Amino acid sequence: MRLLVLNPNTTASMTEKIAAAARRAASPGTEIVAANPARGPASIEGFYDEAMSLSGLLQVIRETPDVDAVVIACFDDTGLDAARCLTDIPVVGIGEAAYHMASLISNRFSVVTTLARSVPALEHNLHRYGLWSRCGRVRSSEVAVLELEEPGSNASARIGREIARAIADDRAEAIVLGCAGMTDLTERLAAEHGVPVLDGVSCAVTLCEAMVRLKLRTSRLGGYAPVPQHKLAPA
Amino acid sequence: MRLLVLNPNTTASMTEKIAAAARRAASPGTEIVAANPARGPASIEGFYDEAMSLSGLLQVIRETPDVDAVVIACFDDTGLDAARCLTDIPVVGIGEAAYHMASLISNRFSVVTTLARSVPALEHNLHRYGLWSRCGRVRSSEVAVLELEEPGSNASARIGREIARAIADDRAEAIVLGCAGMTDLTERLAAEHGVPVLDGVSCAVTLCEAMVRLKLRTSRLGGYAPVPQHKLAPA
Amino acid sequence: MRLLVLNPNTTASMTEKIAAAARRAASPGTEIVAANPARGPASIEGFYDEAMSLSGLLQVIRETPDVDAVVIACFDDTGLDAARCLTDIPVVGIGEAAYHMASLISNRFSVVTTLARSVPALEHNLHRYGLWSRCGRVRSSEVAVLELEEPGSNASARIGREIARAIADDRAEAIVLGCAGMTDLTERLAAEHGVPVLDGVSCAVTLCEAMVRLKLRTSRLGGYAPVPQHKLAPA
Amino acid sequence: MRLLVLNPNTTASMTEKIAAAARRAASPGTEIVAANPARGPASIEGFYDEAMSLSGLLQVIRETPDVDAVVIACFDDTGLDAARCLTDIPVVGIGEAAYHMASLISNRFSVVTTLARSVPALEHNLHRYGLWSRCGRVRSSEVAVLELEEPGSNASARIGREIARAIADDRAEAIVLGCAGMTDLTERLAAEHGVPVLDGVSCAVTLCEAMVRLKLRTSRLGGYAPVPQHKLAPA
Amino acid sequence: MRLLVLNPNTTASMTEKIAAAARRAASPGTEIVAANPARGPASIEGFYDEAMSLSGLLQVIRETPDVDAVVIACFDDTGLDAARCLTDIPVVGIGEAAYHMASLISNRFSVVTTLARSVPALEHNLHRYGLWSRCGRVRSSEVAVLELEEPGSNASARIGREIARAIADDRAEAIVLGCAGMTDLTERLAAEHGVPVLDGVSCAVTLCEAMVRLKLRTSRLGGYAPVPQHKLAPA
Amino acid sequence: MRLLVLNPNTTASMTEKIAAAARRAASPGTEIVAANPARGPASIEGFYDEAMSLSGLLQVIRETPDVDAVVIACFDDTGLDAARCLTDIPVVGIGEAAYHMASLISNRFSVVTTLARSVPALEHNLHRYGLWSRCGRVRSSEVAVLELEEPGSNASARIGREIARAIADDRAEAIVLGCAGMTDLTERLAAEHGVPVLDGVSCAVTLCEAMVRLKLRTSRLGGYAPVPQHKLAPA
Repeated sequence: MRLLVLNPNTTASMTEKIAAAARRAASPGTEIVAANPARGPASIEGFYDEAMSLSGLLQVIRETPDVDAVVIACFDDTGLDAARCLTDIPVVGIGEAAYHMASLISNRFSVVTTLARSVPALEHNLHRYGLWSRCGRVRSSEVAVLELEEPGSNASARIGREIARAIADDRAEAIVLGCAGMTDLTERLAAEHGVPVLDGVSCAVTLCEAMVRLKLRTSRLGGYAPVPQHKLAPA
Repeated sequence: MRLLVLNPNTTASMTEKIAAAARRAASPGTEIVAANPARGPASIEGFYDEAMSLSGLLQVIRETPDVDAVVIACFDDTGLDAARCLTDIPVVGIGEAAYHMASLISNRFSVVTTLARSVPALEHNLHRYGLWSRCGRVRSSEVAVLELEEPGSNASARIGREIARAIADDRAEAIVLGCAGMTDLTERLAAEHGVPVLDGVSCAVTLCEAMVRLKLRTSRLGGYAPVPQHKLAPA
Repeated sequence: MRLLVLNPNTTASMTEKIAAAARRAASPGTEIVAANPARGPASIEGFYDEAMSLSGLLQVIRETPDVDAVVIACFDDTGLDAARCLTDIPVVGIGEAAYHMASLISNRFSVVTTLARSVPALEHNLHRYGLWSRCGRVRSSEVAVLELEEPGSNASARIGREIARAIADDRAEAIVLGCAGMTDLTERLAAEHGVPVLDGVSCAVTLCEAMVRLKLRTSRLGGYAPVPQHKLAPA
Repeated sequence: MRLLVLNPNTTASMTEKIAAAARRAASPGTEIVAANPARGPASIEGFYDEAMSLSGLLQVIRETPDVDAVVIACFDDTGLDAARCLTDIPVVGIGEAAYHMASLISNRFSVVTTLARSVPALEHNLHRYGLWSRCGRVRSSEVAVLELEEPGSNASARIGREIARAIADDRAEAIVLGCAGMTDLTERLAAEHGVPVLDGVSCAVTLCEAMVRLKLRTSRLGGYAPVPQHKLAPA
Repeated sequence: MRLLVLNPNTTASMTEKIAAAARRAASPGTEIVAANPARGPASIEGFYDEAMSLSGLLQVIRETPDVDAVVIACFDDTGLDAARCLTDIPVVGIGEAAYHMASLISNRFSVVTTLARSVPALEHNLHRYGLWSRCGRVRSSEVAVLELEEPGSNASARIGREIARAIADDRAEAIVLGCAGMTDLTERLAAEHGVPVLDGVSCAVTLCEAMVRLKLRTSRLGGYAPVPQHKLAPA
Repeated sequence: MRLLVLNPNTTASMTEKIAAAARRAASPGTEIVAANPARGPASIEGFYDEAMSLSGLLQVIRETPDVDAVVIACFDDTGLDAARCLTDIPVVGIGEAAYHMASLISNRFSVVTTLARSVPALEHNLHRYGLWSRCGRVRSSEVAVLELEEPGSNASARIGREIARAIADDRAEAIVLGCAGMTDLTERLAAEHGVPVLDGVSCAVTLCEAMVRLKLRTSRLGGYAPVPQHKLAPA
């Protein structure tokens, strides 16, 4: 099985880190094809970056035909709906993957993400996925995406502070780390805080494996009806 | 006052029609600057078209600086959130404009749009705007966007059939026409069915005029925080 | 165009202040007809005052026939539904006007009103308008309505304190001032707190202008069906 | 124990019918004091009638001091919130009473009321009471309130038709009759349709008895804080 | 009238206390039959205890045929739905009873229960009853159920602390005590905090009396259809 | 990896069928341990059967210690919350598994289950899982659970009729088969109706595999805190 793990931003070091996390999570027979768009924003922080990454992101999907499923590895599930109109193989966003998985091990979860500017996009998604009532709060740690790539930043401490608040104030029973770049902090934070901590990349990889095994395909009725051929010509 | 009325698709005849509707709705002192992206889909029908139009749409906004407000003239409010991060002048989508206005003259409204594939995007928007409980149903007439441009189609009859059902089955007290291309059918359908029928283009134009007069600006806190300068370089 | 701006309480000085705010917001060709009931409560603070003002308020509407739209200038949108059964010209409450406008410039707004006793009525309205999910919190400043009329009160400071909390705790991106008597504090508070602050009176005036221009009329189907003639005789 | 059963309209024959129903439901030691306002609409059908009945309705409560609880015997729960600010004895509307009771014997109930114009007011109430999700649909029989007073009308058949639809289409497990004037049809319709049918008058009377026995009083905190003395002077 | 008041746990001293509270609340003609299962958990604290008590609880109902209604005297409304399939006499849980009653005397109530582990079960119930929007917060006092039976514990002080927070932070207008074992603290806490405090046992007893008087029976349509005879054989 | 697939009813032929479906879905290295309680109802149809199966079901979990995860193979997710308090290995219900998976391939799904009496339990679950807004309707085919075991019944045709209605009337984009006994109809119905059809058993098996691989464990905070040792003694 081949999974395309698609980092919507253009920062290759982050693509590497995500690919490594995906490979750790994947089953033995699964090949991870990691990619990022050739052009677009270097980090996705808020609505504008998300919009500007879409054309490059969809191009990667169109040009990577021999895969069995696609993971969209940004926490706002960038371009998820559009990608599902392009192909009927499973397409899973790391945000939705983590929310659904967290719903299976807790009564309520909270999300700790990067900047305040990214929070409303995650809240919109939770509303439309229907899982808003399962979420205590979407919290920002004020750690920027690319700061997570810098050794020596105190990112972990700042994220941990929000986890502690989520447990005390939101009565969160599980924590979702709301950025693909936080993936390597997962285990340490779980141990420190005594709470399940979910990383969206690994959640999405294993969900895709499950869906491929079950031969589940995106519906072709309604909102994900296939894009007409004449609209698929390169922009 | 200058308003940019931005048709997110590249069909110039539709831009013309929208511009004419906008001018009919505008106050005497308001200048309508109509535009569409240079590249992108010829019609916006569903999630993929929406995604593929964004880069062109945002470019038009960046390159049209001397306006007082922006109307996004596609019913799925294409790129609305991203545009609000680009500038703090009012940006109003024709979908949200019509929903808010319909909420002021009815207890419940229904939407009649083009194709079934476009319905979920409108439903997502209604959820996140909070107005889902005000909407009876989003109905599709199965009239394609560009069919609305063809003289002699029976578009009006097919849309009328859904209006009749909305009144009888959804107990809709007002009807929102869910496509910028339906703007010139508004008055006839209202007269035929004895119900207020709202056209998003004119609703958005007058809302923008109101907001400019009130000096209302998009918030710079949270989700609409301004895009950092280095991210505004051309893609 | 003539707009009836109707203060539901009987305090003439407040009617004056509201009229002045309405005139500042109105377009050149718009005439503001300000009025208040001859009898009823001197301030509307909670459910009982609201109920006791209705008969006088509806009498003013019945006896002021030559207007193009009506603004109900109390934040609980006193008698809004009843007024819409009396006439099909637009009737807009300053509460709903501010909530809809705030929804166009922010992901989430909070309301700062007068007394705790007034809060549940506003919360009821937000629920039924559907905009509850857009509102962070309805906060009371414990400044009474008529205290706002007194020079030298520290009303502005107390309201400002709640604005600061709304930004920090509710993550509000915009603030709605929840009382017609707060209209002249709007600009100062916006400047002090660096956040859009909305005044319902000016929002409602410009919305009415927009609706009149669009020839939008209240639906006659369902809940706003016209009152039968024999029920319009004076009580 | 003395209960004031207050018909908000001025039709004495309907007050009689309601009083008889209340007496049938009441416990031996309970005295029913039936009343209606001296002035106001002869029937409450929609928002305008509701507003015009309030001043008379509240006057009756103010002038009937020696009672232990108040039943508001109109299905839109006319003036309920205002009445609770006037006194801390229990005040129960027949609409809410029937909805709460129906929630104790069914997973979902539907309401069958009089005219379409009355439906949105009931829907607003269900939203704010929180019981909207328990209600399948609010249906109108198009039987006017005063038609229920006429012998020989086919009201029962028309109401029965909506009950049958509610069971089949809404999957209602119980039916709430949405008008005080339908009280004497309850038993017959229940027998005919094999479904529990609830009459709000008897539900409210027994709820008031329960609350008086429990010494439950309306909260004085927040929205039902007592009206200040100077506002209680006659209008 | 005979009411079965059924304590789902096996602690006889608690059954006694509940029976005494039920007798204080009951009308003169009402006989209270108190019972608890012969086997099962000694206290119900969370989902597992609830599940393990069901078989014994339903056996008591099956073997106590000559009663007119059943009160389930545990705050998570243990086995409520199952019991309603066994018999069509009214079955009322003390949780739902208190929530419905609190909705009649306040705009918003908060719940103060025992342990954090019990909170999600109550939250689930509030969601499905529809009354979630009426509840400010479900708070835990960290007083265990059986600790309430011990003289000299400072249970009352710890519960009182949460009541104070509910009034200040949740803006609760009424308090529901979320455990049958708290029934004898009701009056004192109400007096201390100046807020209505509801005890579910007495609420449920009087609701059952009301329903019996009204001859209301659980619906036999849909989810509460009677259990087929062959499934009623002893397990 | 060993998965306990637990059929909550006592019908061994159904346990066999479920085990076969689980084995088809499982990865090569996964061992399926199928079981059913020794006592309890022969089919789970509604609230009473669910309650009566819990004690036996939890006993099986307590007495099957060497497994890595548990699938509860009844569509009402019988005893799910209680089981999560017993152990921190993943416990997944086939209902929730199918709903979450359907949310990843469609904008809206409908459920087709057995009898009308089973519908409200599924609706309650959808509400509390948060996925109610993703579900078009829960439909009953009026095929009883054990009828599915009989060769020659026209179960498939009756279920198919509801699928057709779900696509046309609910605008469902995917179908969830709401009974473990329908598992072998999945592929045929999907092919016949051109829509993804989800079987909860295979969804739950692959979700458990994913969770075991990710070392996700049920949270020990809040509602799923471990049952105290003294409460685990046999009933």
